[in-house]
Amino acid sequence: MSMGRLTKGPHPLLIELLYEAKFADDQTHLLRHLLELDAAHVVMVSRQGLLSQRSAAALLVTNRALVTRLERGEETFERSTRHRGLYAVYERHYIDVLGSEIGGSAHVARSRNDINATLTRMRLRRALGGFLEHGVDLVAALTEQAEAHLETLMPGFTHQQPSQPSTFGHYLSGVTAELLRGLHWLSGADVAIDCLPLGAAAGFGTSFPIDPQQVAGFLGFSRVFANSLDAVASRDYIVQVLAALSVVGTTLSRIATDLQTWSAPAYGFLSWPDELVSTSSIMPQKRNPFVLENIRGLAVRPFGALFEALAGLKNTPFTNSVEVSAEATHSVWEALDATQASVRLLSLLVRSLKTDHSEMERVLGSSGTTASAIADMLVRESGVSFRTAHEIVSREVEGLSGATGPETVGRRLQEAGLTLGHRIAIDPASLAAAMDPRKVMRSSGYGGGPAPEATRAHNAALRRECLLLRAELTRRTQAQADARQRLQLEIASICEGHST
Amino acid sequence: MSMGRLTKGPHPLLIELLYEAKFADDQTHLLRHLLELDAAHVVMVSRQGLLSQRSAAALLVTNRALVTRLERGEETFERSTRHRGLYAVYERHYIDVLGSEIGGSAHVARSRNDINATLTRMRLRRALGGFLEHGVDLVAALTEQAEAHLETLMPGFTHQQPSQPSTFGHYLSGVTAELLRGLHWLSGADVAIDCLPLGAAAGFGTSFPIDPQQVAGFLGFSRVFANSLDAVASRDYIVQVLAALSVVGTTLSRIATDLQTWSAPAYGFLSWPDELVSTSSIMPQKRNPFVLENIRGLAVRPFGALFEALAGLKNTPFTNSVEVSAEATHSVWEALDATQASVRLLSLLVRSLKTDHSEMERVLGSSGTTASAIADMLVRESGVSFRTAHEIVSREVEGLSGATGPETVGRRLQEAGLTLGHRIAIDPASLAAAMDPRKVMRSSGYGGGPAPEATRAHNAALRRECLLLRAELTRRTQAQADARQRLQLEIASICEGHST
Amino acid sequence: MSMGRLTKGPHPLLIELLYEAKFADDQTHLLRHLLELDAAHVVMVSRQGLLSQRSAAALLVTNRALVTRLERGEETFERSTRHRGLYAVYERHYIDVLGSEIGGSAHVARSRNDINATLTRMRLRRALGGFLEHGVDLVAALTEQAEAHLETLMPGFTHQQPSQPSTFGHYLSGVTAELLRGLHWLSGADVAIDCLPLGAAAGFGTSFPIDPQQVAGFLGFSRVFANSLDAVASRDYIVQVLAALSVVGTTLSRIATDLQTWSAPAYGFLSWPDELVSTSSIMPQKRNPFVLENIRGLAVRPFGALFEALAGLKNTPFTNSVEVSAEATHSVWEALDATQASVRLLSLLVRSLKTDHSEMERVLGSSGTTASAIADMLVRESGVSFRTAHEIVSREVEGLSGATGPETVGRRLQEAGLTLGHRIAIDPASLAAAMDPRKVMRSSGYGGGPAPEATRAHNAALRRECLLLRAELTRRTQAQADARQRLQLEIASICEGHST
Amino acid sequence: MSMGRLTKGPHPLLIELLYEAKFADDQTHLLRHLLELDAAHVVMVSRQGLLSQRSAAALLVTNRALVTRLERGEETFERSTRHRGLYAVYERHYIDVLGSEIGGSAHVARSRNDINATLTRMRLRRALGGFLEHGVDLVAALTEQAEAHLETLMPGFTHQQPSQPSTFGHYLSGVTAELLRGLHWLSGADVAIDCLPLGAAAGFGTSFPIDPQQVAGFLGFSRVFANSLDAVASRDYIVQVLAALSVVGTTLSRIATDLQTWSAPAYGFLSWPDELVSTSSIMPQKRNPFVLENIRGLAVRPFGALFEALAGLKNTPFTNSVEVSAEATHSVWEALDATQASVRLLSLLVRSLKTDHSEMERVLGSSGTTASAIADMLVRESGVSFRTAHEIVSREVEGLSGATGPETVGRRLQEAGLTLGHRIAIDPASLAAAMDPRKVMRSSGYGGGPAPEATRAHNAALRRECLLLRAELTRRTQAQADARQRLQLEIASICEGHST
Repeated sequence: MSMGRLTKGPHPLLIELLYEAKFADDQTHLLRHLLELDAAHVVMVSRQGLLSQRSAAALLVTNRALVTRLERGEETFERSTRHRGLYAVYERHYIDVLGSEIGGSAHVARSRNDINATLTRMRLRRALGGFLEHGVDLVAALTEQAEAHLETLMPGFTHQQPSQPSTFGHYLSGVTAELLRGLHWLSGADVAIDCLPLGAAAGFGTSFPIDPQQVAGFLGFSRVFANSLDAVASRDYIVQVLAALSVVGTTLSRIATDLQTWSAPAYGFLSWPDELVSTSSIMPQKRNPFVLENIRGLAVRPFGALFEALAGLKNTPFTNSVEVSAEATHSVWEALDATQASVRLLSLLVRSLKTDHSEMERVLGSSGTTASAIADMLVRESGVSFRTAHEIVSREVEGLSGATGPETVGRRLQEAGLTLGHRIAIDPASLAAAMDPRKVMRSSGYGGGPAPEATRAHNAALRRECLLLRAELTRRTQAQADARQRLQLEIASICEGHST
Repeated sequence: MSMGRLTKGPHPLLIELLYEAKFADDQTHLLRHLLELDAAHVVMVSRQGLLSQRSAAALLVTNRALVTRLERGEETFERSTRHRGLYAVYERHYIDVLGSEIGGSAHVARSRNDINATLTRMRLRRALGGFLEHGVDLVAALTEQAEAHLETLMPGFTHQQPSQPSTFGHYLSGVTAELLRGLHWLSGADVAIDCLPLGAAAGFGTSFPIDPQQVAGFLGFSRVFANSLDAVASRDYIVQVLAALSVVGTTLSRIATDLQTWSAPAYGFLSWPDELVSTSSIMPQKRNPFVLENIRGLAVRPFGALFEALAGLKNTPFTNSVEVSAEATHSVWEALDATQASVRLLSLLVRSLKTDHSEMERVLGSSGTTASAIADMLVRESGVSFRTAHEIVSREVEGLSGATGPETVGRRLQEAGLTLGHRIAIDPASLAAAMDPRKVMRSSGYGGGPAPEATRAHNAALRRECLLLRAELTRRTQAQADARQRLQLEIASICEGHST
Repeated sequence: MSMGRLTKGPHPLLIELLYEAKFADDQTHLLRHLLELDAAHVVMVSRQGLLSQRSAAALLVTNRALVTRLERGEETFERSTRHRGLYAVYERHYIDVLGSEIGGSAHVARSRNDINATLTRMRLRRALGGFLEHGVDLVAALTEQAEAHLETLMPGFTHQQPSQPSTFGHYLSGVTAELLRGLHWLSGADVAIDCLPLGAAAGFGTSFPIDPQQVAGFLGFSRVFANSLDAVASRDYIVQVLAALSVVGTTLSRIATDLQTWSAPAYGFLSWPDELVSTSSIMPQKRNPFVLENIRGLAVRPFGALFEALAGLKNTPFTNSVEVSAEATHSVWEALDATQASVRLLSLLVRSLKTDHSEMERVLGSSGTTASAIADMLVRESGVSFRTAHEIVSREVEGLSGATGPETVGRRLQEAGLTLGHRIAIDPASLAAAMDPRKVMRSSGYGGGPAPEATRAHNAALRRECLLLRAELTRRTQAQADARQRLQLEIASICEGHST
Repeated sequence: MSMGRLTKGPHPLLIELLYEAKFADDQTHLLRHLLELDAAHVVMVSRQGLLSQRSAAALLVTNRALVTRLERGEETFERSTRHRGLYAVYERHYIDVLGSEIGGSAHVARSRNDINATLTRMRLRRALGGFLEHGVDLVAALTEQAEAHLETLMPGFTHQQPSQPSTFGHYLSGVTAELLRGLHWLSGADVAIDCLPLGAAAGFGTSFPIDPQQVAGFLGFSRVFANSLDAVASRDYIVQVLAALSVVGTTLSRIATDLQTWSAPAYGFLSWPDELVSTSSIMPQKRNPFVLENIRGLAVRPFGALFEALAGLKNTPFTNSVEVSAEATHSVWEALDATQASVRLLSLLVRSLKTDHSEMERVLGSSGTTASAIADMLVRESGVSFRTAHEIVSREVEGLSGATGPETVGRRLQEAGLTLGHRIAIDPASLAAAMDPRKVMRSSGYGGGPAPEATRAHNAALRRECLLLRAELTRRTQAQADARQRLQLEIASICEGHST
């Protein structure tokens, strides 16, 4: 019973839940790639002498007719009520049009296994390219704003408490650096994707003398698989995409968290125009920057897809299986879409945000954020150790948030020093500088601090990196266009050769 | 800037990515519930004197017209190109039809926040009911087969090695017990869902003297929320649904794993008819029971949704937010659908499987699975301790898998006993019985073992439980139908009262 | 090769990485339960006539000696350098002390498989009981504060924006309701745990006429397994514990998020004494309520453990395996500990928090939170529809956050009404009431709103539930103590009977 | 209240649950790195003129004394009962030994925030290096066996059904390729780790003219952070490590799954010596290769840690926080340890496995795996299309698994051809070759198939890659040793200079 020819079509429930359920989606997202893959394979087997030019030409003409219909948005092919998914319908179409000998010859030296493995890579490569374009655009939006806010003084926070004087530009550069690392990681996944499985057949190669490298050249892949089992069984690159996407998602959620905190009326640092906020259905005073909540929610969608993929791959045989090829990685597309929406929404919000400098300085002025600068000044000018300086300042810290002037503060610091056994000299000008948030911020130029010239240099570096990434994306797009053109020339040559 | 009236519609990107992206889905899945909720609310505010009967009647007539169009599959309402989602379009429709005074009066004492919270519960209650029906059907399929295979002798496995004689029925009863616990857990989530948030308004209740309990009666909810913030902020019940679904998923994946192992040619225990297997596009000998791979893959989909929900809820304010109400729990629907598909496919496979008894007994006979029964016999009849008996048998274990007869085995066991310092008497009949897998299986009736009468009793208990669960599902469906009828009577009464 | 007696001990790497690595932990957490289980089993097999009273007495005396040493913190037993984990060492000890015939007789009618399954349940039952005690204590802390802050006026927030007047007590009652649901869910897992696997042996029961119900009575279990495979293969209850724990964790993280927001200087609503905050190693002005960050981090630890358990169970055979029994659920203990720490820390913070009413009212007064109350008033008293009232108020909303008095606001609202075509009468007293946040809060008593008497009633209900949960925990503890006493009496009877 | 000096130590519960709970672990794993970091910082601030040589020498002497004690396993320092964790105790020790002026001077231009960020990187870099060594060793074990089994004929499987003739070596090369990609990914994380945060202070840099690049040179880091906020806030590299580890884990679980299937008696392909299997406590015939279950379980541990890290980072402010720096990434160490154990166990199993060729060929011979080779032969020699050939062979597929000879099979294929309207010639020698699994395997050399010379070439490539990775690991270790030596020379120079 465990071997032998099937004489019946699939059970209606299988058609409903497995084949028909996916058909429309496959037609939308995979058919274009299948047509291209099919053409490249036919050209190669023809050039290798495994298929007559006459058959190849007939197949390619049929293929081109389908491409044309697809591009025009026309119905591509009919399907029987008991079909077994896109590929089966597709091959059936060839046989219906060309007869079983020519139509049935396309499938030489290939299998659904290596075809499926290839289609997933082609679709993912394309989706990833689109995502990265939007990612690079967000980097551009962030670095523009970072550059515009190099001098926008605001409190730096740790543990949600004001800490030290900083700038909004410094914040934006910091998050951009993490975002760029995430995009680079994601871009690196493209290298993993860029290896062609076609030729692996069912997972055990073939005895037909095919040339997979040739097909790779037509489909814009740089490399081919050296082991046919690896070619059909592995989906590690999808985990890599989802992990990198998850990291990008955490970065987006952290940025949105900060922007949301700072746009609450209690802070009032940031706001957006009418078209980017909503009001309440019952509270007319509300101006909710609710899009930040969408961003936080959408950005972490890849988490679920990542865990589905990992759990999906766990304890599966290392070979082709429906579990791995169809089910385990199913959610990658939605995760890409959701995170891409989050990226686009954040770009929009970043580009259109308005800052309120007076609110930033209000919070800064009332929270003693210059305390450590004063301690540093005492180390530098009064010769006490940092720990002693910290202790002295801690005794006068209430005075730093009010309107108390440098002279009073200086005297009190000297008194505090005496209490601790230190007679310290304080230069009023130095103290006044250490008590001035803007001056403190400007002097914090070491260790990656917010001094404008340091942030400006960092921004320049970020923009260079961004340009390089953009150039790499362009290079990839071009390489695929070139490959496509090579393939078209071959197709034309075979078809023309034949019609002559 | 952080307060004030909006004078512009939403940005096109928000419409594209947030509002329009969800509209079709909301219309398909939420509108029917929104119409029902709206009617119940209008009836209640009218009965409480918060809305004139004339306004109420006008609103209800409009509502009924929409219900009719929806049921007929007709276009329900037009939407502006700059809309803000289903509810906004819906309220706009009322105002367009009835004018701002009557059309605008429906929104008294409610908010989008409590409406959304209610709609999610209504949709989930319905989906869960459907899922559980299929779940109960799988339990029925499993217990039927378990009953049919009470005497189907097969090796029991641990660590994927044959262990002791068992039956296929015992295996099926065991997995059914776990499955039923999962379904009970899932069914328990319905109790958590069964609490009405409507009346909580934006999350801070209302000063209008509404009667939420009345609305609950019209919508088939048993309880109402005592705290308005809890009503709009909490989504714990969705996590409960997803966790229970994940447990059900692990059970399904474990069953599918065993069925797959046993249907491999190396075992040959199980097979399926043509319409439930597939062949290969290149290997004509293949009969792949590939649906088991779909089941394994589909069954664990709720894992991802569960983690999205948990990560989505983490570190959110306890109040209404888009992040919680729209994004965090977004994947529950797809997780329910996927697991339901898995349940239905497994029911089909369980009902149509064929067992090959000779293959089961072939493996059983060659793997020494009676060794522990022989050791037990030595304890019982020869007076040695279990550890000694184990040691004696271990020295003769190779003899158990071949054709060696009881006499030879008995003599060798005695020799082994002597080597260990034990002179043991062995009754040939007892040894022969202990070496007979079927007799061993029949005697293993303690501690939940595979003896047929024990499994039969367990099956009966499982079927009773299954009947109770089915009765509970019927009760729920009926309670909602009753509520719906009460609401229709009230609607009729208000509309007729008014038209008179 | 796949069958036969082992003549060598385990490889050193297995000892290092598998056996020795877990030994200390098992001795700390499992040995006490193993001794109890062992005694109960020996008593039962003795009473069933499967073991002589003499052997039983000898085993029980040895068992009691180990209990004594363990309770005194003394070394329990030596282990060989090539042992195979706690149970093997344990049985070896019996044989060393009592000889192979008596020492080797304890293992009759049981297996490591059912023993391990039982030990996990015993340990988890105990840990869960401890957790729930702390959970109930947090509920008590929250409801006490909720009761104390029934009149503590503060802005209610949605989307992190001030929305409507509410109270701190209302917030606390809301989160308590969700927390209590989580604890109830967790407590329900105890019912799932409360089923004894012992007697299932390797997973296929036994032919010895054992009485598992008797053992259940000695160990404080209510039920026994009807299917031996289910008994050793299933770990669904651990997923249930982890899922419920994860839900509790999300609730804790949400509470901590709000408390952190409100303790930031920009809000200034909450603060804690010195011993619960930290300062910075370099910023002497800092008072970081950093414990809230630990709570957020610790609370979500069960997420990882939950995912490990689910992924660990996926695609495993439904039988006993190391993968399921040892690896998949390994992290439950750490998850319980971490969440328990989070619960205890939050109890401490809740009990010792200080509120600053002037800051709460400052934010409330400046953010127009009475706008919807004014719109409601217009509906009630001026006869316009809610949508119209909302529109009218939205045109005057800036005036609500400043010092503008009711008269001016009233006049402007009338003008706004006229613009929209509505001539409306406004009662100055009603408007003044609608503009007074405290009055608005007090009037919001419907739909679970913050009016003090409504919150008080909800608090009373929460406290009743909490008492019931506490009573249930006490009942469980008592039931186990009773069982333990029954066992001790049996042990004494067997040992005394023998020594006579 | 939200600002000001603390006058009390931490609450006892904080000490119990937060500080004391981590102290021993921090001392074991972080102190060595803290001492090195501290020395490097002191040398740098001394060279930059920010600290007198006298103070620097005193601090370094104290530091070296601690290093000596730590290396000797002696007690390093006492801690007060109310301490605030390792760093606080550490600085206190300096002040106790050297007085507040010298002891308190070490903390200039640094903060606990950048110190913690640096320590995590130092610890992770070291742990990762150790892991990769074991990973490379597993690759070596796999490629050795792959090379030894180039001709070990076995059925290739898809969907757990025998598919086509393959070799065990081909399987092993395939999984090794995926494993190596995972290790490369993991190794790439080291590049992300290799950036020094020290100098970022609390997250806002410093006004002291420090030189972080100098410190990097002493600690073996290649780069320093350009943005101080990024330096203390980001933990993206930990997610990268955990994601790569998770991918490696899925690969390990898939290998273990296949090895487990093939070592079941039903297959009998693989076995292990006594010291690597276990028997049952009650079933003396059992030889469980249970270590494969530990491997599957241990290998997927990083999944949980990965999810904890992602959920832990979600919705946190982009700055230093306890939630991010201590809690979110807490599980990375255990995940590394568990996966490393899995890697080591699998290396051992791979090195010591025995194959049973007769069992492999038994399964191969009975399952029709040459069907597609025969179809390919018909395409090549009989001129039919692949689809027609597939159809012809499918009608005779039962004959392929038995003892039917080529002549009979050939005649039947011709008859089947006629039925389908094709008169085909069949060369008996070609058919005999296509029916011989070994010949089929040897001819499958295209597309990465199992022909020995193709697998040999792939193996050679894998070994080259493995050598390169090993060389890179050695380079990293050496670079750190060089850095350490530079630091020691500087320390010696400062200390000697001072003592002169």
